Amino acid sequence: MYFPEPLALRSGASIRAYDLSYETYGQLNADKSNAVLICHALNASHHVAGVYLDETGQIRDKSEGWWDTMIGPAKPVDTNQFFVIGVNNLGSCFGSTGPMQINPDTGEVYGANFPVVTVQDWVHAQARLLDALGIETLAAVMGGSLGGMQALSWTLQYPERVRHAVVVASAPNLTAENIAFNEVARRAIVTDPDFHGGHFYRHGVLPKRGLRIARMIGHITYLSDDVMNEKFGRQRRTSAPGEASAPENSAAPDAASPGNDIGRAGNSAAPYKYSTQDVEFQIESYLRYQGDKFAEYFDANTYLLITRALDYFDPAAESSGDLSRALAQAKAKFLLVSFTTDWRFSPLRSREIVKALLDNQRDVSYAEIDAPHGHDAFLLDDARYMGVVRSYFQSKVAA
Amino acid sequence: MYFPEPLALRSGASIRAYDLSYETYGQLNADKSNAVLICHALNASHHVAGVYLDETGQIRDKSEGWWDTMIGPAKPVDTNQFFVIGVNNLGSCFGSTGPMQINPDTGEVYGANFPVVTVQDWVHAQARLLDALGIETLAAVMGGSLGGMQALSWTLQYPERVRHAVVVASAPNLTAENIAFNEVARRAIVTDPDFHGGHFYRHGVLPKRGLRIARMIGHITYLSDDVMNEKFGRQRRTSAPGEASAPENSAAPDAASPGNDIGRAGNSAAPYKYSTQDVEFQIESYLRYQGDKFAEYFDANTYLLITRALDYFDPAAESSGDLSRALAQAKAKFLLVSFTTDWRFSPLRSREIVKALLDNQRDVSYAEIDAPHGHDAFLLDDARYMGVVRSYFQSKVAA
Repeated sequence: MYFPEPLALRSGASIRAYDLSYETYGQLNADKSNAVLICHALNASHHVAGVYLDETGQIRDKSEGWWDTMIGPAKPVDTNQFFVIGVNNLGSCFGSTGPMQINPDTGEVYGANFPVVTVQDWVHAQARLLDALGIETLAAVMGGSLGGMQALSWTLQYPERVRHAVVVASAPNLTAENIAFNEVARRAIVTDPDFHGGHFYRHGVLPKRGLRIARMIGHITYLSDDVMNEKFGRQRRTSAPGEASAPENSAAPDAASPGNDIGRAGNSAAPYKYSTQDVEFQIESYLRYQGDKFAEYFDANTYLLITRALDYFDPAAESSGDLSRALAQAKAKFLLVSFTTDWRFSPLRSREIVKALLDNQRDVSYAEIDAPHGHDAFLLDDARYMGVVRSYFQSKVAA
Repeated sequence: MYFPEPLALRSGASIRAYDLSYETYGQLNADKSNAVLICHALNASHHVAGVYLDETGQIRDKSEGWWDTMIGPAKPVDTNQFFVIGVNNLGSCFGSTGPMQINPDTGEVYGANFPVVTVQDWVHAQARLLDALGIETLAAVMGGSLGGMQALSWTLQYPERVRHAVVVASAPNLTAENIAFNEVARRAIVTDPDFHGGHFYRHGVLPKRGLRIARMIGHITYLSDDVMNEKFGRQRRTSAPGEASAPENSAAPDAASPGNDIGRAGNSAAPYKYSTQDVEFQIESYLRYQGDKFAEYFDANTYLLITRALDYFDPAAESSGDLSRALAQAKAKFLLVSFTTDWRFSPLRSREIVKALLDNQRDVSYAEIDAPHGHDAFLLDDARYMGVVRSYFQSKVAA
């Protein structure tokens, strides 16, 4: 959808006009009361659920939406009941206006000149999309990780327009360690000689070295130490160089799906190559493969913008750091979900939100799911997690 | 000390001749029974304790040895009683033969052709140094992190030559996550265009971009989430660009010393710059500074070699993964120390060693120190930690 009106950004800059890519699933009911907005995290898109067909009408391989386990007919967010909207955020690289598009003011690709966007700006743009769709009030806004931050921000920016907020594996802001990981990833990208100050498009190159490193770091932080040990441990990789033993791509673009993505372990008794650059361990092969794959499709400027939006998000900052005071504006009912082994956005961070909401006598449900998969768990098909969301939508959102 | 005899390496390669840089502190007693060998970790050296003087006889600024809190006259490892030896490992870049030196076989700098060395090879070379010094038996061998792995390996390779082993903040092998962080750091280095396949010396350049990223990743893993939040949190950096507000160098080369290294926090109410590349947060400034500093002095090939030695270390592998069986060879008495917030080498890993030693009825003391500093704690001056080591040396090693 094209938006001809300028969007004023939190930074003071503005975007003169822009497109938002979106998909919808299910039917909007007569009183337009069954809309559920899904907000995406770092590297996902508006393609939340379902599959794409090719020209012959066959299902395109690996075309499942990134939250297809969660959203669809008879799924926890049931598209037979709800009208679900997935939207690609401004600054991303899956169709909405971002650094790879032409700046109408200059006729050139934005590149590094794309303005810095924040969670609040995204929510603002999402609200305009709802306006255009004629939807005044959301039955629910829902997201995981950075998507959860957007859901939380919705309840503060548009308290009258949100009945329920489902905030999964998220946090009220980033810790120093979170910012640190983002910063290392950004430095890897901007110091790649092919980055050219963010104007690499002009040079016909991509800063793939930096993107690979960024993605490898990301993957380590998406998984738990336990699941890495269980899936990879010190397993060796013994296939000959060049042999196609890279693990299969996961359908979920947002983060690793260890259950699908992990190749067979090599024979752990094979002799070492005694090399600093060859792959010796399965975990190395996995990370390199994930890095290579990511560098092929993800825009470097988008990576910088989205990690910065994560860094900046901090709704309590305007209330002198008092999250309870900040969340007093929210009127929605809430479901918070966290995962025990998530060390990127640990349960403690979700509990901070729960506590701040309870301080304001808000209606809050909270589930802490004992899952081994780390931050990635929010994208995986865990029965207890799915059960909690299903039950919340049936008993509260649909009520 | 120059060693003209070839050293056969575990990889099958050998080093024809080599130098080892070492320092000693205190006096070797008449029966040569008071020697304590200190093994270093990733980026430290033989300069374990004491200070250097400049030409005018003044103490050179920041010249304290990396474990000067631990070792010296009247310190926990008391050099009035013990003859302490610090040695720089083969492949390192502080004077011992390594990738920056000339290969006598070719007359060229080793660079990437320096053979891969292992913990066992280092211990073998250290044993030869002791031979040359006329020391048959060590009162103790001691190290933290990778240094602890060397101490453990001493008790297996030369069980008759070690009376005590002090293994601090260490592990019986690396986890998948540990290997993963090493691999990302290595990929950052080898994909830096200035790496030139490890032969960058010939090109008159250094792969500083890669080294910076490697060091930033390292620093994140040396600290705990808690101490990062306490020291940095979301504090802002507000000094103008170019202003000399970088934090001061730490005396300890082995890892960050947060107590000394952290600059003053900016005013957290200052407006954001809304930039993806400028520093906004204090933690970013700290990491960039640490990365820049490291890239100035540390050799990239050494970084690859030493992280690979960490990956390979796994004494249980030769006993089908049975650590108890592997440690049956050890005859030394042990002190193990770990730190509660160390997520790089967690207390669980030290307890695995303790359990395997107890399975063999070995004499083991174990202290789990409740310290907030993460892996870095092993280099810091914590009273309980220092007390444990002092007491062990007085009551057991000196006995």
